[in-house]
Amino acid sequence: MTNESRIWTAALVVVGDEILSGRTQDKNIAQVASWLGVQGIRLREVRVVPDDMDAIVEAVNTLRARNDYLFTTGGIGPTHDDITVDAVAQALGVDVVIHPKARAILEAYYETRGGLNEARLRMARVPDGADLIENKVSGAPGIRAGNVYLMAGVPGITAQMLDGLTGQLEGGLPLLSTTVGCWVAESEIADLLRETEKAFEGVQIGSYPFFREGKTGANFVIRSVDEAQLQACAHALEEGLGAIGRFPVSGGI
Amino acid sequence: MTNESRIWTAALVVVGDEILSGRTQDKNIAQVASWLGVQGIRLREVRVVPDDMDAIVEAVNTLRARNDYLFTTGGIGPTHDDITVDAVAQALGVDVVIHPKARAILEAYYETRGGLNEARLRMARVPDGADLIENKVSGAPGIRAGNVYLMAGVPGITAQMLDGLTGQLEGGLPLLSTTVGCWVAESEIADLLRETEKAFEGVQIGSYPFFREGKTGANFVIRSVDEAQLQACAHALEEGLGAIGRFPVSGGI
Repeated sequence: MTNESRIWTAALVVVGDEILSGRTQDKNIAQVASWLGVQGIRLREVRVVPDDMDAIVEAVNTLRARNDYLFTTGGIGPTHDDITVDAVAQALGVDVVIHPKARAILEAYYETRGGLNEARLRMARVPDGADLIENKVSGAPGIRAGNVYLMAGVPGITAQMLDGLTGQLEGGLPLLSTTVGCWVAESEIADLLRETEKAFEGVQIGSYPFFREGKTGANFVIRSVDEAQLQACAHALEEGLGAIGRFPVSGGI
Repeated sequence: MTNESRIWTAALVVVGDEILSGRTQDKNIAQVASWLGVQGIRLREVRVVPDDMDAIVEAVNTLRARNDYLFTTGGIGPTHDDITVDAVAQALGVDVVIHPKARAILEAYYETRGGLNEARLRMARVPDGADLIENKVSGAPGIRAGNVYLMAGVPGITAQMLDGLTGQLEGGLPLLSTTVGCWVAESEIADLLRETEKAFEGVQIGSYPFFREGKTGANFVIRSVDEAQLQACAHALEEGLGAIGRFPVSGGI
């Protein structure tokens, strides 16, 4: 098995009462998922948990053990409801310490913004042994503790932290995808989809129906790590749709 | 303990490779969360899992056991990648059967749409003993199997199914919330937040910072099942902000 054929996986724990209450529409799942795909890492599972120590610890411990990487978003700010650092430290069985470089970054950042108070210093706390992930927006860094990557809850800040990590994580072949759309009820062509998928080893076809302008359609997303297999499968599906008088739309609708 | 003081909880399993790949931005978490809140049921945990039998079964069995209700979204359509019914049946230890009423609904729906083929009949399959949840949009019903509620992946269809369930589920007191906004760095007032929360029994304050128009602000979301406590806490927080020369914005920014 070459290194390239190994599949690298990640999980994500979204920490936040505001997501579970429905107040805030999560944007970090899609953002982290897309970024991981480009790194050649597959997002295998996401858990959204409340701002609750036991719930975070359980999710972190289960998911870090069975994935190459675990990301968290949320709960690393300066207020009383920010407990992700404490929870990850507890999960890892280490103390929480002040990271000297994080302290220096925050001191510099807050020099012209009222100074470093006790709450702000909370953002320099890390699980013992952790490294920092740079954040150009708001000073407070992200944190890497073992295979756990702690990111912000605010999507724009997480974007900066992911940017700082780009190319740093080992991954495998990226999962490629292409889409074929068609104005057809997926239920009319379920057999064609199943048989086409079966004919191409290592290829998955996902079927995503929609209703627009009073009409039924679907996008068929074809995924593979092999570009040639991907294109051959898409071609076969388009031929199959054409053969029953349905017009396929390359790239999706 | 009166029935009203019992807390009713739910979990949600989002089934879908398309969410984990980042292709599709999930809308069902926020939708289900908001709907549950109105029913007096708290969403405690969400898991997003791939279109994989073992992953769905594990999530369903863990979450149905520790919550009053479990919802799933996705994977109940007519194509080969729709396996949620099979996974829930396996989790419950029952067979998959054709529900006669679901079959009749689909026969009527497809009478003028090309007839009921084998793929469409898949949407009449339910875990043995299950009931149907009406869906006025696209014929194929949602499913209730024990305390598990199977909903569509397409958010507009799930909305219809939730509408059909409104008022049907037993819940407790709804968790009320009110928001106080302020153009302040949350790190400046972390102590005020902590102390205000502590002063009001059963009240939680969440702090949600943002950056807009080059300025730092935050919304403080106060939650309680007790309207009087909620308002008293919001008032105290507004007073506290005023006392340090910060202008609170009732209702949030």
